[in-house]
Amino acid sequence: MTTNMQILLANRPSGWVQESDFKVVETPLPQAGPGQMLIRIHWLSLDPYMRGRMSSAKSYAKSVEIGEVMVGGVVGEVVASSGGNFGVGEFVVGRLGWQQYAVSNGEGLTRVDPNLVPLPAYLGVAGMPGATAWTGLLEHCQPRAGETVVVSAASGAVGSIVGQLAKMQGCRAVGIAGGKAKCDYTVQELGFDACVDYRPHKDMYSLAKALKEVAPKGIDGYFENVGGMVMDAVMLRMNAFGRIALCGMIAGYDGQPLPMANPALMLINRLKVEGFIVSEHMEVWPEALAELAGLVAQGKLRPRETISQGIESAPEAFLGLLKGKNFGKQLVKLV
Amino acid sequence: MTTNMQILLANRPSGWVQESDFKVVETPLPQAGPGQMLIRIHWLSLDPYMRGRMSSAKSYAKSVEIGEVMVGGVVGEVVASSGGNFGVGEFVVGRLGWQQYAVSNGEGLTRVDPNLVPLPAYLGVAGMPGATAWTGLLEHCQPRAGETVVVSAASGAVGSIVGQLAKMQGCRAVGIAGGKAKCDYTVQELGFDACVDYRPHKDMYSLAKALKEVAPKGIDGYFENVGGMVMDAVMLRMNAFGRIALCGMIAGYDGQPLPMANPALMLINRLKVEGFIVSEHMEVWPEALAELAGLVAQGKLRPRETISQGIESAPEAFLGLLKGKNFGKQLVKLV
Repeated sequence: MTTNMQILLANRPSGWVQESDFKVVETPLPQAGPGQMLIRIHWLSLDPYMRGRMSSAKSYAKSVEIGEVMVGGVVGEVVASSGGNFGVGEFVVGRLGWQQYAVSNGEGLTRVDPNLVPLPAYLGVAGMPGATAWTGLLEHCQPRAGETVVVSAASGAVGSIVGQLAKMQGCRAVGIAGGKAKCDYTVQELGFDACVDYRPHKDMYSLAKALKEVAPKGIDGYFENVGGMVMDAVMLRMNAFGRIALCGMIAGYDGQPLPMANPALMLINRLKVEGFIVSEHMEVWPEALAELAGLVAQGKLRPRETISQGIESAPEAFLGLLKGKNFGKQLVKLV
Repeated sequence: MTTNMQILLANRPSGWVQESDFKVVETPLPQAGPGQMLIRIHWLSLDPYMRGRMSSAKSYAKSVEIGEVMVGGVVGEVVASSGGNFGVGEFVVGRLGWQQYAVSNGEGLTRVDPNLVPLPAYLGVAGMPGATAWTGLLEHCQPRAGETVVVSAASGAVGSIVGQLAKMQGCRAVGIAGGKAKCDYTVQELGFDACVDYRPHKDMYSLAKALKEVAPKGIDGYFENVGGMVMDAVMLRMNAFGRIALCGMIAGYDGQPLPMANPALMLINRLKVEGFIVSEHMEVWPEALAELAGLVAQGKLRPRETISQGIESAPEAFLGLLKGKNFGKQLVKLV
């Protein structure tokens, strides 16, 4: 192959992302200069945070510019090196974007071992989603044995790990997900105690009632991946001194913020609500990832992946992710 | 005097509290039984939390029942004792309610020294509002020198102390209050760096713009006494890793919760938002109150009080408090 297929940001989306917001281009295969390596990307991770990078709105991270390669975490193989810090044939993870090849001086890359866990796990349970679940649950929700922990987007890359880790902490783990298949998966395959399908519920009171049935002692820790009505419903069932870790919050369909219905519940129930960005807590990653990879290797943590084939499939797979069509970690397989 | 004038809860208010929600009664002077004391109440404290106690809605504390004496903190003098733990002529603080006399076995009462600070200070800066300001600012907002701290209801019993304590921590102290007189008071008499009058602002964006002018480096700590549009505006100006202490949050005019416009800002700016109830942190009171009383005695903390005369004036004074007519700590003088 002598070209590099790349996916660029073509437009800033207004409302729902569309495939036309991306552009597929073929560029010449880049060359590794002195001190650089050429990396062939095997796996690309697709994650909800990417939606924020497509927007120019103020956020915690820089937007992707129009015409730039979309950002994204990958696992790749070093295929050429001009004195770079990793050798040909080694595998690395890093943020090299939606493309088949990238040149790097090694900054931000970490070597991974394909013999410990399968390569795609380094983009999921033993990667950023795993570190996210670990940090949000253990540092922010601070669950104690016997407490009830709820996680939204429960069958997703992060949520599925949160619930399994909560069980290991001796908690009652309750998921919230969209659809019976996802709920059944979290309970039957991942060992959650219960999971509520939010879809039949038209308002927060109805959903809160359903939560009461599966979390009869109230909710002590909540790992928030979605916001909106789901969060409003959970807040109605939080116990005094509950902890909420804010990891993801969607906007309304037109990009407008979704309000919180009753913020006074944070005072009435003396809640602690904390937003966090896992990349700002790199100090916990080595411990978290080593432990998470070990749990996968021992069969105690079950990753699930939805895989699309070929870099050119990334935009459609990303749209599916935003609409909840994926099941577990969404990946693109390039090689 | 051979009778005891008391103010009872007559109705649960719907919407704004009205004087007819209270009932003034005269009952026989109670007698101290064995192990009890008769306390003559000199000062009654009026506080926003009492509105919550008039309602039957779920909250962190028990409602006052219809026909019961309204709850409230007081300073009183022991005028008779049948073996109670304080002697005749001693002064105590406690939650003896809206009445002229009360009988107590001493439970929940604390002796106070009228020679250290004036008696009413034990209901304000050296009492519950002082401990509230102390706890919310130091434990939850955790201000560092050079940071900017904002407090709403800035001229009130709690807010006025928050701002003065923030200055002592080396922070820029910015108030939000209703009306020019209150704003001028916080700056000219209490030493706040600035104060924004929220009244001319019709939406959160307008108020946020005004806050930007007086807090040009953004807001690091926010002590919330009101909620609603004021909180929405402050959230637009919070810095990354800001801390918000939730002490008070009003409801809409009809008692319905006021939503939070953009809760995703808690995630985007990685905020920590905590509700707290000062009576659940009694462990900090001795240190806090001793230090606060010392600051008053040294003239470093300036209490301001609005005083109404006679127990029968309490309902009207309480309505004024809820509408922001008071200036500083609202008290009723009974003796």
